[in-house]
Amino acid sequence: MRMYDLIMKKRNGGVLSAEELTYLVNAYVAGDIPDYQMSAFLMAVYFRGMTEEETLAMTTAVAHSGDMVDLSGIEGIKVDKHSTGGVGDKTTLIVAPIVAACGVKVAKMSGRGLGHTGGTVDKLESIPGYRTTLSREEFFQVVNQTGLSIIGQSGNLTPADKKLYALRDVTATVDSIPLIAVSIMSKKLAAGSDCILLDVKTGSGAFMKTLEDSAALAKEMVAIGENAGRRTVALITNMDIPLGHNIGNSLEVIEAVETLKGKGPKDLTEVCTALAANMLYLAGKGSLEECQSRVEGVIADGSALERLIAMAEMQGGDSSVLRDTERFPKSPYSHEVRAGKTGYITVMDTEGCGIASAMLGAGRETKDSPIDHSAGMILHKKTGDFVREGESMATMYASKEELFAAASARYEEAVTIAAEKAEPEPLIYGRVTV
Amino acid sequence: MRMYDLIMKKRNGGVLSAEELTYLVNAYVAGDIPDYQMSAFLMAVYFRGMTEEETLAMTTAVAHSGDMVDLSGIEGIKVDKHSTGGVGDKTTLIVAPIVAACGVKVAKMSGRGLGHTGGTVDKLESIPGYRTTLSREEFFQVVNQTGLSIIGQSGNLTPADKKLYALRDVTATVDSIPLIAVSIMSKKLAAGSDCILLDVKTGSGAFMKTLEDSAALAKEMVAIGENAGRRTVALITNMDIPLGHNIGNSLEVIEAVETLKGKGPKDLTEVCTALAANMLYLAGKGSLEECQSRVEGVIADGSALERLIAMAEMQGGDSSVLRDTERFPKSPYSHEVRAGKTGYITVMDTEGCGIASAMLGAGRETKDSPIDHSAGMILHKKTGDFVREGESMATMYASKEELFAAASARYEEAVTIAAEKAEPEPLIYGRVTV
Repeated sequence: MRMYDLIMKKRNGGVLSAEELTYLVNAYVAGDIPDYQMSAFLMAVYFRGMTEEETLAMTTAVAHSGDMVDLSGIEGIKVDKHSTGGVGDKTTLIVAPIVAACGVKVAKMSGRGLGHTGGTVDKLESIPGYRTTLSREEFFQVVNQTGLSIIGQSGNLTPADKKLYALRDVTATVDSIPLIAVSIMSKKLAAGSDCILLDVKTGSGAFMKTLEDSAALAKEMVAIGENAGRRTVALITNMDIPLGHNIGNSLEVIEAVETLKGKGPKDLTEVCTALAANMLYLAGKGSLEECQSRVEGVIADGSALERLIAMAEMQGGDSSVLRDTERFPKSPYSHEVRAGKTGYITVMDTEGCGIASAMLGAGRETKDSPIDHSAGMILHKKTGDFVREGESMATMYASKEELFAAASARYEEAVTIAAEKAEPEPLIYGRVTV
Repeated sequence: MRMYDLIMKKRNGGVLSAEELTYLVNAYVAGDIPDYQMSAFLMAVYFRGMTEEETLAMTTAVAHSGDMVDLSGIEGIKVDKHSTGGVGDKTTLIVAPIVAACGVKVAKMSGRGLGHTGGTVDKLESIPGYRTTLSREEFFQVVNQTGLSIIGQSGNLTPADKKLYALRDVTATVDSIPLIAVSIMSKKLAAGSDCILLDVKTGSGAFMKTLEDSAALAKEMVAIGENAGRRTVALITNMDIPLGHNIGNSLEVIEAVETLKGKGPKDLTEVCTALAANMLYLAGKGSLEECQSRVEGVIADGSALERLIAMAEMQGGDSSVLRDTERFPKSPYSHEVRAGKTGYITVMDTEGCGIASAMLGAGRETKDSPIDHSAGMILHKKTGDFVREGESMATMYASKEELFAAASARYEEAVTIAAEKAEPEPLIYGRVTV
């Protein structure tokens, strides 16, 4: 098999066989296919796309390029969740304990934040002492005992994806829907859960800016998951507005705790309820309506919050901050961002909100940047809300006072205030199944 | 300027500025842009194309990446000719002496054969002693004295094209019309002639298989040449059938000599007359009709042949083989390819004919393969001719008898014999000017 022929075939609109795609992935990881051939192939895929069979074959090959996690040491059905990333997206911290409290296991590896989006691992590390690196045995033990564990990515998972992503990142081939689907789903297949719930974000704060692209990505990923033998459902959710009020690591944990107490913001509660109900549905816990009732039940009786606390404790975390969120370390400085005029907020450029928060210290620019767990912002007003000139729209938190000027300018730039109230957009655009 | 942004711009259908394309070419030659980014860019160009302004800017940058030949040491107007390559294409050996005999200078650098097409330099080297490597001074002296000189490519001409071509060759980005135009025209601009006549071959033996592609390439190249200040015309000629009867190096020189004596095959004579007349026209030697008469005159009076002989002598060649072509060294073995059935030849897959000839030793598979100057074939029957079963269609020549079996099988595979005579195709499809 010659890589040249495979590039030519794809370039000319042909369909590669599973054998050809497996060769391509394995030979690339082995160093037998040079980067300059792979980048030409990836650009051809950008223009030609891939069939459902091709994305499945490539995903399977990428998944098998490294360790395939064996979760059989954990009893029962394991459900994974993946979000394509957004601003203020603390849903994992809420839905994983809910699902665990309903008797379905969540053994989850999460990522760190980069650019304008946060990462679950960073958020959990704002709990003093919480360890995101566990041995395989510890990981299984936490899940078996508490019903859930959330750790960072470990082991040699999908090395082909790492190598391919690094190349796509410098050759303008990142935003290809089949290649995004391959990248996400290969990691989910390798991570070993039986069922996968995908939260595909759409809008100004999401990687996919349009509903059309989000729906296409959701469909491709659901097809891959199901064809690979994993029950898979995707929800397409709104990221044209930050989710909830809090952006920043410990600020988001605090809001997650509030939501697990049944006192969270309406939008965040609605999205988390839908995500958790769908995870239970995938695990066979009844109809969607029944699953929704279960979710509401474990919030109301406090058992979901207890699961979060139990996991945090088993992973070395100081659970007193979860029992009383006032105990979280606080930023030494705060700053009010005041409305420049009176009117309705009609647009919040959500990527801009994420960048403003990152500028305060809550995010990182490069993989090695440090992170300030207390920094971030609380939004008092969101799209659709009425504000008076001079009224506080948001409170910012940072470790240095001089960070506020640029961050609040960036935030104000992201917010549009107008005389007419805009029509509210749905929180959940759709549900994608096979 | 960042290469990433240039890839993204082209990928998204944008137009690059002359400054951007100059940066891209220069930084690539300097090693500041890695192959994996350039191959992604080239694949994006394959899908998105380039505007007339972009191809001109890229061609100019590639031309200036190395030496720009200064032909001012040669008096008068210099006309160059380029063929996109075919089978049995010995036109340069005929038209250059004709044009020189009409008083227009031809200072030409030619290439070697590769794959199924022959190269003028290989053909000339079948003349014992002929030197294709001359110093700049010798080159100018031969042109000033005889009106023409044909040598191999020398000096540091278009290093960017060499590097780009090598990359395109392994990344399935060779057959992009703008990239082909850039490659050909950058070399023509660097080679220094005032006028350029392009012979764009079309059909089964050509690089461009369809008339549509050939016309598009011709148009792009003429636009580049004229926009770069060189008078440029292209003829689109038929390569769905080998040109003339002889394929192979010394066999083609013999046929060229016959044609310069006015005794060549009709098709070859017609194409050469048109090419030479257009070269004279470009140099301002009158209307196309007047130029055609001049061409016929220098064939009839023998002065064109004398120019070929004079050049060969000045470049160290044994001109006795040109005065009496029976003196050319001959292959020790010959073989008749006989018709398998009675009927009309309706198709000659011309690439197949070229490959059969190369299998006999007349061509080379890789750049370093040796070549047999006497090997090749003479076609007795061509498309449109009637053949009887058992009648010889062609005579093959080789240095080893065992080469005939596979070569004649390949040749027979290329030839279709049917009951009905096919409509003859035109020899010259069109003439492209600005």
